[in-house]
Amino acid sequence: MDEFRLTSFEEMDAATEELLETGKKVGADSWQLRAKQQTPHCKFGEQGICCRICSMGPCRITPKAPKGICGCDAHGIAGRNFLRFTAGGAATHSDHGREICHTLHTVSPNGSYRVSDPEKLKRIAEEWGVETEGKDIYDLAHEMSELALMEYGKPFGVSRWLSRAPEHTRELWHKAEIEPRAIDREVSCAMHMTHMGCSSLSEALVRQSLRAGMADGWGGSMCGTEFSDVMFGTPMPVDTEANLGVLEKDMVNIIVHGHDPSLSEMIVNYAEDPEMIALAKSLGAKGINVAGVCCTSNEVAMRRGIPMAGNFLAQENVVLTGACEAIVVDVQCIFPALGPLSKCFHTKFITTSPIAMMPDSDFVRFSPESAAENARKIVKLAVENFVNRKQELVHIPQLKQKATVGYSVEAIKKTLDKVTNSQVDRTGTLKPLADCIKSGVLRGAVAMVGCNNPKVRFDTAHIGLMRKMLANDIILVLSGCSAQAAAKAGLMDKRAKELCGDGLKRVCELCDIPPVLHMGSCVDISRMMVLASDLSRDFGVNISQIPLVGCAPEWMSEKAVSIGNYVVATGIDTFLGVTPQITGSSQMVEWLTNGIRDWVEAAYTFETDIEKLGDMMIARIEEKRAALGI
Amino acid sequence: MDEFRLTSFEEMDAATEELLETGKKVGADSWQLRAKQQTPHCKFGEQGICCRICSMGPCRITPKAPKGICGCDAHGIAGRNFLRFTAGGAATHSDHGREICHTLHTVSPNGSYRVSDPEKLKRIAEEWGVETEGKDIYDLAHEMSELALMEYGKPFGVSRWLSRAPEHTRELWHKAEIEPRAIDREVSCAMHMTHMGCSSLSEALVRQSLRAGMADGWGGSMCGTEFSDVMFGTPMPVDTEANLGVLEKDMVNIIVHGHDPSLSEMIVNYAEDPEMIALAKSLGAKGINVAGVCCTSNEVAMRRGIPMAGNFLAQENVVLTGACEAIVVDVQCIFPALGPLSKCFHTKFITTSPIAMMPDSDFVRFSPESAAENARKIVKLAVENFVNRKQELVHIPQLKQKATVGYSVEAIKKTLDKVTNSQVDRTGTLKPLADCIKSGVLRGAVAMVGCNNPKVRFDTAHIGLMRKMLANDIILVLSGCSAQAAAKAGLMDKRAKELCGDGLKRVCELCDIPPVLHMGSCVDISRMMVLASDLSRDFGVNISQIPLVGCAPEWMSEKAVSIGNYVVATGIDTFLGVTPQITGSSQMVEWLTNGIRDWVEAAYTFETDIEKLGDMMIARIEEKRAALGI
Repeated sequence: MDEFRLTSFEEMDAATEELLETGKKVGADSWQLRAKQQTPHCKFGEQGICCRICSMGPCRITPKAPKGICGCDAHGIAGRNFLRFTAGGAATHSDHGREICHTLHTVSPNGSYRVSDPEKLKRIAEEWGVETEGKDIYDLAHEMSELALMEYGKPFGVSRWLSRAPEHTRELWHKAEIEPRAIDREVSCAMHMTHMGCSSLSEALVRQSLRAGMADGWGGSMCGTEFSDVMFGTPMPVDTEANLGVLEKDMVNIIVHGHDPSLSEMIVNYAEDPEMIALAKSLGAKGINVAGVCCTSNEVAMRRGIPMAGNFLAQENVVLTGACEAIVVDVQCIFPALGPLSKCFHTKFITTSPIAMMPDSDFVRFSPESAAENARKIVKLAVENFVNRKQELVHIPQLKQKATVGYSVEAIKKTLDKVTNSQVDRTGTLKPLADCIKSGVLRGAVAMVGCNNPKVRFDTAHIGLMRKMLANDIILVLSGCSAQAAAKAGLMDKRAKELCGDGLKRVCELCDIPPVLHMGSCVDISRMMVLASDLSRDFGVNISQIPLVGCAPEWMSEKAVSIGNYVVATGIDTFLGVTPQITGSSQMVEWLTNGIRDWVEAAYTFETDIEKLGDMMIARIEEKRAALGI
Repeated sequence: MDEFRLTSFEEMDAATEELLETGKKVGADSWQLRAKQQTPHCKFGEQGICCRICSMGPCRITPKAPKGICGCDAHGIAGRNFLRFTAGGAATHSDHGREICHTLHTVSPNGSYRVSDPEKLKRIAEEWGVETEGKDIYDLAHEMSELALMEYGKPFGVSRWLSRAPEHTRELWHKAEIEPRAIDREVSCAMHMTHMGCSSLSEALVRQSLRAGMADGWGGSMCGTEFSDVMFGTPMPVDTEANLGVLEKDMVNIIVHGHDPSLSEMIVNYAEDPEMIALAKSLGAKGINVAGVCCTSNEVAMRRGIPMAGNFLAQENVVLTGACEAIVVDVQCIFPALGPLSKCFHTKFITTSPIAMMPDSDFVRFSPESAAENARKIVKLAVENFVNRKQELVHIPQLKQKATVGYSVEAIKKTLDKVTNSQVDRTGTLKPLADCIKSGVLRGAVAMVGCNNPKVRFDTAHIGLMRKMLANDIILVLSGCSAQAAAKAGLMDKRAKELCGDGLKRVCELCDIPPVLHMGSCVDISRMMVLASDLSRDFGVNISQIPLVGCAPEWMSEKAVSIGNYVVATGIDTFLGVTPQITGSSQMVEWLTNGIRDWVEAAYTFETDIEKLGDMMIARIEEKRAALGI
């Protein structure tokens, strides 16, 4: 990799084809095949006008049957489905956050989990009005974990985190009645509103969709991010590598996959244990290599520099290399297909959470209290499995790129401090970024997030849009599978500045950053909300006025819709490359793409033509600039 | 009604036909028509093997496409759908309970809401280990409301209500890991487990389905029932009437519909207000008549003797009489069809809850804090609407029956006290009931509950099964729309004893009860759990050993499945006349009809042939008798 160039889609596809060849040999299934079998999709479902909410049905809206048996029309049905979709996502992110808070409750100076960033803990405690002076940091951690857990169920009041937002935004939320109360209450409320014979008014359903999303981004996800940082360290720039080539032919390869860092942090620890390494060597391996898939990967890459093997649609590829001793999963976005697939190889598919139990897996129940023991057992299982590798099936595509990751809000501010004239300006702000945007050196920023989806050629929308933005001097902050797409292609290599317009290139050079900043996993989009809030203050305008848009070009999960809802609700126009299943209702389309603008000063744009989507994003950014007169 | 006889299905159908004729005149839609338009239903949905949980799909399982794109099979898909169905029901009942707890928080000696049953409040407080001695009853109410609200969100521990169950049952729950933690947490956890890439193992999904159901019946519903009793009074036997004939031709008819008694109690108060009655008279009406539909009706019938106009599938009929000035709804099971339908008449369709907002309605936002004002406004709207009645459209079918309702557990014990030999036995127990079952005077008991569903001829399964049970000396406790079906037909008239076998007839005479006991609304199935627990103690056997089964022959809502799950989890075999949408998964069918018996000593039976279903219920009761040697 002496000379820098992006890895092309053709190279990636060719590598996948080779792996699928191995798959054929062993009789493995693949998402490519299943997607073909499942196409065409049911039109009623795609349009959101199939209702299965009670057992009088299912009901489907057609010209001849314009209403369900209860009398609910297309708008009510699509609205309910959309709200439930959101509730699924909000519950999921937030429950991940809850696990982190419970883990924080177990921290002790000599335990599996410790306080790694006491300053951050104290900062949050002060935000929440908790006395920190003279308090043992572990006592404070326990106190804070209980307060955080109460955010999930407190009978009165709204989310504590809302106070981080600018006053104007908070006023909008209050007026629109979308301030989230207890996190779980918003999920339950969403389920209640969508029960048979409750709300069928699209406006009410959209409103609760925003509120449930807010309970995620300004509630559960923020708990997840902030207290993960407290325990595992706040990410700072770190170098790593990405793509399948990070697997090591001669080492025990352990893949961590899922979302919750509590498990993967422990796995990484035990993979570094001399005793385990000795065991690996005694079995003929050169050592133990941990690599990640999906957001678990983002978590340990950001904090530990652990390499990233791939994102969502690459999860099967990891097993197909034949060189994966164990794929260890926690929760979310894990293909049930990994069970049968791993059986075609020597790979152990190890599930660990009661939340995500799957057939054809080895279940090692993980809990914060027994974390060390669980992780040790899992690493040992993986190491001992090395001898079972079938050498004739081993094929690791030699694709990998360098990446610099770890841009938490704190890291971004610290990076900007380097270009701050500390004689004149305060440090620890986003003012230099605001100044770059005001001056036009940067035209604006895009928060690009979300999954992969077989409806879009793998990673192409992510990479295509990123390149377009970079060429137009628009900086990107990334998270989730979008971030991994960038890293795999090479866009997180600092040398990718060469793909940027002159302004952005100059910023990359001055700040010594890649042009796309890895902000973390999908719960970490809460970081982007803090970034937008702080930027609004340092910019001196409302969030909705900043030349900043959100984008999820290949999203697939309910979490992505929950995210979209809180990003939009925060005042950030959001562009989706896969259309939500609401098109059967003109009202729902109107609310989401326009109507909600009256409440939150932002709305959605849906466009499956990715070129067009990119043009629209740039146009929106330029509109915002024009409105500000910059 | 001098001579007693049941109202026949033919009479009811004829009455409906007449009303539908009126409907045709004014261009009204009807569920009968919509059900026809929506038939046949989608087979994938009916079998539970359509997945819309992420936007890669929708995916549908067929022989040629045996897995979704993620690799999830029919068992995982049907299992996830079943768990989400349960979560919808659990959230809904529980959120109703939460509203009651919030209302309890507003009680004051001179306010809209007061403590009506201080003894019950103290009893619950003692159960919960709260000091009552010397405490002002309103202070106690506020303290208890906060504790109850914490049941929804407490970070640690399991439901307080579980302590009401027999020790053996609690041990089973603990071992099966289905003790519910915070109520909302179980809903969120269910949503998380069913998110894309989480659980696809049917066993895990079934386990959480039971736990989410438990969070309803032994959590949120129990909060709803118990604190409603505290505020509005614990039901005691009261006489009322049922069926459409309770509407009064010459009076202002206000229909209350939905579930939460907070609103309807206030409506009933204001309908009795001399000023309102005077207003009604000044407009030509003879007075104000309040009648109910669905569970709101059960609530005010049980406590105030307010007549019951009809159950779920009769809700449109009420408007079709042309004599309904206002149909005032709170939450759940309200046809969105009532909006357009009311527009065909002079009827005002008044929605009141942000949880249940519907098109074509007048929204009067109700809150406990402004309850008096809201209720007054609504009653006034209705009264003033009397002059808009179109006399030519008025037709009230002259069908009604007498009914004695109000059999709370407390009322049942009080009734049994009358036949207790207080020289020998303790009073306030269920021992006389246990003795009757042991002796064979009663063969057993059935808890019959649940909705109506167009898939079953309206009310026929309820009434058919009840008659069969009565003839076999099996006593019935009823709730929800099942209870209203009985009342409409005449089975809650004490003279219905004539339809019973000799044993049950004798019990009815001795106790002066109807042979089917109205225990309340659908949240009140929590009463049945307390009844079963107390009966288990007084019987001296485990709940699962009592000759007692549950049955929901015409169920349709998610709540019904949540109920089914907690009833089964409590050890009571449950018989459904409509099959849940899981038949596409042999594993799910096996778990629910058999596998869970290993955990909770009870399981489901699905049978759409109602005659067969009844035979199976009797056989199960006789099996249990045989096992006990009685």
